[in-house]
Amino acid sequence: MIQKVHHVGIAVRDLEAALRFYRDLLGLHVHKQSVVEEQGVKAALLTVGESEIELLEPTGPDTPVGRFLARRGEGLHHICFQTDDVARELEELKAKGVELVDQRPRQGLAGLICFLHPRAHHGVLVELAQPVEGP
Amino acid sequence: MIQKVHHVGIAVRDLEAALRFYRDLLGLHVHKQSVVEEQGVKAALLTVGESEIELLEPTGPDTPVGRFLARRGEGLHHICFQTDDVARELEELKAKGVELVDQRPRQGLAGLICFLHPRAHHGVLVELAQPVEGP
Repeated sequence: MIQKVHHVGIAVRDLEAALRFYRDLLGLHVHKQSVVEEQGVKAALLTVGESEIELLEPTGPDTPVGRFLARRGEGLHHICFQTDDVARELEELKAKGVELVDQRPRQGLAGLICFLHPRAHHGVLVELAQPVEGP
Repeated sequence: MIQKVHHVGIAVRDLEAALRFYRDLLGLHVHKQSVVEEQGVKAALLTVGESEIELLEPTGPDTPVGRFLARRGEGLHHICFQTDDVARELEELKAKGVELVDQRPRQGLAGLICFLHPRAHHGVLVELAQPVEGP
């Protein structure tokens, strides 16, 4: 079951410049910043209500976000819905013929995640996430 | 003050086809559907937690969403943050030099709204909305 918008991902060229808008002008609180090498991103997570804004700067041009920037420029990159059971959600969508990027859930910034394919639903990259309690 | 993600706007060519994904496959509840002639959109609003997904099909090619589709194709269109005082927020952002689409708040689907200019913040069309109680 989809519970809420977990986050909206935004591709940016320069994380610091983007923070000047979202943090300094809009006043959103940055609750996490990290470099995720295996995904090729420098990320900042900002709290807004029960959701987050995920600012994503690529660590290089040959990364998913780097290729997105080259193709589309800066802008909204994906939307992530929180679910209570990402594996089950994935199985159900697969059974209904929805095209997937990830065939099974994997560890991501937001917990246990998977990406559906933008072809499946009108050009939008949709992520599903089941937050996992930290140790 | 920004309180939450009010909605995420998604530009689609065919509202009914998009509903088959968001409503029928993801299971989101459609709480409103309407045609807003002056904005040139057929819209469906779907509830997800404290936020909404706003699916936008243009009523014709020469509308803001119609031009977006021609330029970028289907996909994430804008993000709307809820504020308790859209007029004050707008004045403060203007004073800080943020580029605006609307110089003052106007009536929109989500209440009293205004759009900031995507040039101002990394290619993202940002809307601010102050919901207004219905009569």
